Amino acid sequence: MNEPPKRLWDKGVAVDEVVHRFTVGDDPTWDRHLVHWDCLGSAAHARTLARVGLLGQDELDALLRELAKIDDLARAGRFEIPAELEDCHTALEASLIAALGEVGGKIHAGRSRNDQVATALRLFMRHHALQWLDRLAGFARAGLERMRHDGDVPMPGYTHMQPAMPSSVGQWLHAWVEAALEQMDAGLDLLKRLDTCPLGTGAGYGVPLALDRAYTAELLGFSRVQRSPIDVQNSRSRLAVYFVRLAADIGGILEKLSCDLLLFSTPEFGFFGLPESLTTGSSLMPQKKNPDVLELLRAHAARLRGRLVELEAISGKLPSGYHRDWQLTKEPVIRTAFELDEMLTVATRVLAGLAVNRDRLAAAMRPELYATHAALALTQQGVPFREAYRRVADDLRAGRFQPEELPEWRQQAGKVEDGLEEVLRDELSRLTGRADQIRHKIGVAEAALLPPAHR
Amino acid sequence: MNEPPKRLWDKGVAVDEVVHRFTVGDDPTWDRHLVHWDCLGSAAHARTLARVGLLGQDELDALLRELAKIDDLARAGRFEIPAELEDCHTALEASLIAALGEVGGKIHAGRSRNDQVATALRLFMRHHALQWLDRLAGFARAGLERMRHDGDVPMPGYTHMQPAMPSSVGQWLHAWVEAALEQMDAGLDLLKRLDTCPLGTGAGYGVPLALDRAYTAELLGFSRVQRSPIDVQNSRSRLAVYFVRLAADIGGILEKLSCDLLLFSTPEFGFFGLPESLTTGSSLMPQKKNPDVLELLRAHAARLRGRLVELEAISGKLPSGYHRDWQLTKEPVIRTAFELDEMLTVATRVLAGLAVNRDRLAAAMRPELYATHAALALTQQGVPFREAYRRVADDLRAGRFQPEELPEWRQQAGKVEDGLEEVLRDELSRLTGRADQIRHKIGVAEAALLPPAHR
Amino acid sequence: MNEPPKRLWDKGVAVDEVVHRFTVGDDPTWDRHLVHWDCLGSAAHARTLARVGLLGQDELDALLRELAKIDDLARAGRFEIPAELEDCHTALEASLIAALGEVGGKIHAGRSRNDQVATALRLFMRHHALQWLDRLAGFARAGLERMRHDGDVPMPGYTHMQPAMPSSVGQWLHAWVEAALEQMDAGLDLLKRLDTCPLGTGAGYGVPLALDRAYTAELLGFSRVQRSPIDVQNSRSRLAVYFVRLAADIGGILEKLSCDLLLFSTPEFGFFGLPESLTTGSSLMPQKKNPDVLELLRAHAARLRGRLVELEAISGKLPSGYHRDWQLTKEPVIRTAFELDEMLTVATRVLAGLAVNRDRLAAAMRPELYATHAALALTQQGVPFREAYRRVADDLRAGRFQPEELPEWRQQAGKVEDGLEEVLRDELSRLTGRADQIRHKIGVAEAALLPPAHR
Amino acid sequence: MNEPPKRLWDKGVAVDEVVHRFTVGDDPTWDRHLVHWDCLGSAAHARTLARVGLLGQDELDALLRELAKIDDLARAGRFEIPAELEDCHTALEASLIAALGEVGGKIHAGRSRNDQVATALRLFMRHHALQWLDRLAGFARAGLERMRHDGDVPMPGYTHMQPAMPSSVGQWLHAWVEAALEQMDAGLDLLKRLDTCPLGTGAGYGVPLALDRAYTAELLGFSRVQRSPIDVQNSRSRLAVYFVRLAADIGGILEKLSCDLLLFSTPEFGFFGLPESLTTGSSLMPQKKNPDVLELLRAHAARLRGRLVELEAISGKLPSGYHRDWQLTKEPVIRTAFELDEMLTVATRVLAGLAVNRDRLAAAMRPELYATHAALALTQQGVPFREAYRRVADDLRAGRFQPEELPEWRQQAGKVEDGLEEVLRDELSRLTGRADQIRHKIGVAEAALLPPAHR
Repeated sequence: MNEPPKRLWDKGVAVDEVVHRFTVGDDPTWDRHLVHWDCLGSAAHARTLARVGLLGQDELDALLRELAKIDDLARAGRFEIPAELEDCHTALEASLIAALGEVGGKIHAGRSRNDQVATALRLFMRHHALQWLDRLAGFARAGLERMRHDGDVPMPGYTHMQPAMPSSVGQWLHAWVEAALEQMDAGLDLLKRLDTCPLGTGAGYGVPLALDRAYTAELLGFSRVQRSPIDVQNSRSRLAVYFVRLAADIGGILEKLSCDLLLFSTPEFGFFGLPESLTTGSSLMPQKKNPDVLELLRAHAARLRGRLVELEAISGKLPSGYHRDWQLTKEPVIRTAFELDEMLTVATRVLAGLAVNRDRLAAAMRPELYATHAALALTQQGVPFREAYRRVADDLRAGRFQPEELPEWRQQAGKVEDGLEEVLRDELSRLTGRADQIRHKIGVAEAALLPPAHR
Repeated sequence: MNEPPKRLWDKGVAVDEVVHRFTVGDDPTWDRHLVHWDCLGSAAHARTLARVGLLGQDELDALLRELAKIDDLARAGRFEIPAELEDCHTALEASLIAALGEVGGKIHAGRSRNDQVATALRLFMRHHALQWLDRLAGFARAGLERMRHDGDVPMPGYTHMQPAMPSSVGQWLHAWVEAALEQMDAGLDLLKRLDTCPLGTGAGYGVPLALDRAYTAELLGFSRVQRSPIDVQNSRSRLAVYFVRLAADIGGILEKLSCDLLLFSTPEFGFFGLPESLTTGSSLMPQKKNPDVLELLRAHAARLRGRLVELEAISGKLPSGYHRDWQLTKEPVIRTAFELDEMLTVATRVLAGLAVNRDRLAAAMRPELYATHAALALTQQGVPFREAYRRVADDLRAGRFQPEELPEWRQQAGKVEDGLEEVLRDELSRLTGRADQIRHKIGVAEAALLPPAHR
Repeated sequence: MNEPPKRLWDKGVAVDEVVHRFTVGDDPTWDRHLVHWDCLGSAAHARTLARVGLLGQDELDALLRELAKIDDLARAGRFEIPAELEDCHTALEASLIAALGEVGGKIHAGRSRNDQVATALRLFMRHHALQWLDRLAGFARAGLERMRHDGDVPMPGYTHMQPAMPSSVGQWLHAWVEAALEQMDAGLDLLKRLDTCPLGTGAGYGVPLALDRAYTAELLGFSRVQRSPIDVQNSRSRLAVYFVRLAADIGGILEKLSCDLLLFSTPEFGFFGLPESLTTGSSLMPQKKNPDVLELLRAHAARLRGRLVELEAISGKLPSGYHRDWQLTKEPVIRTAFELDEMLTVATRVLAGLAVNRDRLAAAMRPELYATHAALALTQQGVPFREAYRRVADDLRAGRFQPEELPEWRQQAGKVEDGLEEVLRDELSRLTGRADQIRHKIGVAEAALLPPAHR
Repeated sequence: MNEPPKRLWDKGVAVDEVVHRFTVGDDPTWDRHLVHWDCLGSAAHARTLARVGLLGQDELDALLRELAKIDDLARAGRFEIPAELEDCHTALEASLIAALGEVGGKIHAGRSRNDQVATALRLFMRHHALQWLDRLAGFARAGLERMRHDGDVPMPGYTHMQPAMPSSVGQWLHAWVEAALEQMDAGLDLLKRLDTCPLGTGAGYGVPLALDRAYTAELLGFSRVQRSPIDVQNSRSRLAVYFVRLAADIGGILEKLSCDLLLFSTPEFGFFGLPESLTTGSSLMPQKKNPDVLELLRAHAARLRGRLVELEAISGKLPSGYHRDWQLTKEPVIRTAFELDEMLTVATRVLAGLAVNRDRLAAAMRPELYATHAALALTQQGVPFREAYRRVADDLRAGRFQPEELPEWRQQAGKVEDGLEEVLRDELSRLTGRADQIRHKIGVAEAALLPPAHR
């Protein structure tokens, strides 16, 4: 009994090594990111077992102590998941048995790897979603900062990629701030969706032990249990999709920003420039200062969108219950967590570091941009809009168009309203406030699960 | 001036007819579904213009009267959008000018087709999202009804498509009810996202008229204005994606249900059956009663997922501002609204009509399903779980396994808890309550926009 | 017996009308495009039945005459597919029975709708793939024509959307011609894939009649039978994917062309311009001449890519054999056939109509574009390239860079080689030659299937 | 000069380390798989430079010797790509300079990383596509082997997942063999597409040196040069898509096979079984023998499809010329090469190891499967098919159906034709023959590029 198991399901039959390698796949790699969360989930499960007497207090203490050690090892990058142990859950149980013997073998009562991994992933996603909210707030703040400094600089507004109306750098920046605020709100919706506890549902059909699931949920900082055991499994990929999707949506915003900047920083436009420290060179062409950072933001955004399709392709058309297919959904979830984080960090740096070329922007304010204003000025003299539209079009065609006659409108055109910054700062702080509350509640719960490790 | 324009932007230059046909595409077809919403948006815009004196009271009254007539025509399927008028917005303005002359030409002051279509689509999506919530509630109720009647029937639980643990029809139905409740909550999140008013932002860079946007928002039943004009445009496809995505998510649930039923209604399983009135035959094979309805639910779900990718592919990598590419995002939005509605109706009918074959289900409760219970029973005698697991595995292998020795566990195994139905009904009614509030608020606002039409 | 059946599988049991409507879906709409091909397939099947005596010569003649009439009606847009008849195959059989009584009821011996629809779709795809090859050749010819006229005009070459090296309009046009040639070759590969006859495999498990499948294949102009009946069904969506994929690939090329032109026709670049007859205006802004045609080419390309995902999502994860899910794969196939055709027509028109602004192109030939040439000139004096690179970079940084010192290189830089046009024209004519051969062979076969109709 | 450069484009300006890390990304990891191919491409480039005197014979010999050493290191897994060197191309040049000084700095004359990486990737894809053809042939051979042994075993044929017609294990196996043959042919098409040499086109606008590109192409075993330098860049992701797409298509076939086997190996069907050595257990349920290998084949197939979307999302909507976005297309290409290889190996093992449960298959041959035969038997007595269909349907409904009356038909039903195996073996050997020719030609060319390394 003191000899740790290899596979949890080992019954003494030899496996085909080629097939085994194929089934294990990259799990040992990706699962390294789940060990911490599996330790927390395991601690909550052990405490729940103890509560109904399935573990004695000493056994519980021993298990928690070992889990804390494993957690420390994992944080230090020194917890190994050998391929023959398949995944972090097996490695964790093997490690407990190696250290504690029989007691280690008791922890799996009333749980399955199916609810165990659902729990670890949910904790992982909850943590990273909160991180993203932080990064988003930083991005929004960088936008607000730039608005304060460059908001009044005039800038053409484009439709169909052609000059359309007078606008301003402020109006352009405002769009990114709004988009970030919307995504923060979407992030809070995601956290709501993640806020139910799957632990205690076993392989997907419940556990015939009288475990207090509400207690487990509370220990892990969840607001409630996820009631349906089948839905715990059915929702596994659903929740993963929600998580990656938020990243893809945020990515989509950074992608649009990159597309703008790639266009506006061609020498032909020249509105904005990247500082040379953010550019890259060519192996062949000595003159090049390339905006690779923007191209890569764009590419990562596309990749996130593709990854979402991958995730949905893997998850689609599966009947109810657990399927091993989901093993391949771990990688997309875990990579996305880190990838979006880096993208937001980099994009914030770009936004903060951007040079605004006021001369080029001023030179781009072509008279035709004011054609709509001229038509609307006519409507204020009683000309129906459609008629005014045609008169201005005729003037333009005949080379008679004189936007200089609209001085007061030119000055206001495309400006953001007074007081906008304050409104945006208020909303930002309302959203960060809500995120902070959640972070606090979770932090308290998680901190209480494991004893500080002894080294 | 009394002659209605053709294209709103007509300046007298001939267009290439092949290219024009290509640019118009299917707009006249899909826009039929937007006329009603464009009438509402136009009424709100006219009222806003009147408020600052850009329309007199008589002019406003005349416009509202005409809009009501157009709306009536559209509801009766008799409002035409000729291809040379491109879209419903042009057809609507042309119709107003044809009826009212100069006054008709005044309505476009301070708006662009860009904010006009954003408004019409938002009203359309808001309406249909609320419809979906209704259908979801119906689906959940059908599930709850079946739980009451068939909930206690034992049924094997599967993992990896292999028998795993004892479960019940009730546990299986519970999963669908939970999923429906979750989607209702997600629907409310979507409605929150749709709850800002884009009207008054023109082509995407604001309008140089002192229009009271908060007033417009209130008229249309929105909680607030969408502040950033650029983001109004940038968010156009973002919101469309949110809308189609909810449908795809709900579709994913119906897909899983269909996959279950397709499997469980093969003669080899035989757990459930469709009444013959829901089946289809073969042109060649006289004996066939095919579950086409389930296959098509599955296929429609996949189509919704594909449509989402289509929508994201069209919208991706576009810089800020309006792009004509978005024309192709109308079809996915509009089709999805009706497609999901039909899917939910049909799925509810399937759930309600399903025959439960109790004999086949009972026969499928193989002894091995109780192996986990046997192992857990050993843990209650103090055997560590991993050891108990191996003992039962050995018994199974040796043909010694006797689950009959666990009579009380067999009875409870896989049952849903008492009181669950009530909990679910409470949550359902909380969610329908919130949807009803929104529906009421919007209904009041929309009803006040147009006068009753005179026919 | 003279009363035509409704559904082919009608056995007298009432169907649920809601569910029936759902299962029929849009089939009557899309199937209109398949009637012609179903008539051809049916003629080949009837001839095959006659060959083994399952139809007498008179019966065959009567059937062929009726099929020719149906075909004529269908071409005139007057062949109706009522919803209660589900699809074109049923409508066709019903029509034959209505006209010919018993004899009409004989045609379905030894076939199923499963092989029937596979045949109709294969003929449809084969026809349209050949059409596409024609359009592609037209596009390539337009590119070659422009090369002859504008090929020598200098144009900057971009990498990372930043100026990189000297290039020319000819070099730019060359890329599109090559891409078109590659796609023509891919089109021939597709035709090879489509060149097997599915008819005679019934529902997917063969037909217990001694039908001469090789004869059927020959009648329909196929090179061989598709041997495996199960694979006939399994390949249904596979072949549909190949078809839509070619369209998506060609779309991707038009998309890239559109992206180039949208960029290069901003006033800031100004390299190319669309003639006003190909542009569109704004409802609000009088000055606008928008390149909607380019935006829509880009959007249609994205839609084709999305449609491909839709098709693959519908087809994925289905076990062997026929599934009704495939009903939803007809629309993507049929729409794609026409959509790509229109895209190629429009894109060819754009390429032919494009204005080349030589002044703006000349002005864009910044000195830095020649930095690489300067470095390579140094290497010819023996300086290792990496060293030369750094010297030029230093010169650029110090403002000392003088590309005027490389006169002969400037002249050749970015030019296409002499004789290129001839090489390209040869390859184009080799490819059109192969397409023509196939077209001829098929044309002869198809023309012989049905007698000229008597009206 | 003897000090190796860091980045090839280093001009002495400090870079932002966060942004630099982001731009480098995973390149050092994935590029390890490209070093061998970059050595070959570099050898061909060096030989081409030498041919026009840009390298002396001694310089060439030295470079080839060093390249052979690097290649050996890389094969042994000991060639490092430090993050500050960005990618394998830089690391390779740095390594040459470190070893050879000035001479190492000469190799980059007349090439860019843009054509260099295009070349390395093309060689990589060509090699792996050939490997896949080998694996496919192995899979087809395993199918043929099983046909010989189990081909005659009767098996129900399903449509709509319901029993349809009598079939056989042979007919079922035949479908996989055909699909594999088709994919082999598609693989040969892919190799044709990959068979042009991109080297010598520089950054995408040609190279102003008189390099003999036809010579380079021949050295590398390509049939011709890729003429258009812009299209070399534009086709980079296009070719990557073709490569991943073939994998996704083959994956789709393995997916369908897995779906069949997952269904047919449930205890309820029981037609086939996996040997225990290919199954996996559960951590909780002692009785489980799970077909994880099949689920993972299915999931990998879905992943390949998702990866294709990722690749297309990254590549879509980019204007002409090189973009850094393509950095993210290396991973999908490289992973796919190995992933499909493993999938084919595993699937072949599954096909070869599968247990056929003849009793369960025989028991599943329900009488209704012969209903179509009964109807067709009536047609041979002159009853029109549609009438015969209804008579049999009536018999079935009334419980009067007696398929025993069709003894000779029952025996033949669903059998594969005599001689089929030979036809299939012939086609397989024709296809492997063509692959072998290509492999030989390439092998000879590649072997001649580098001298045997001295260690």
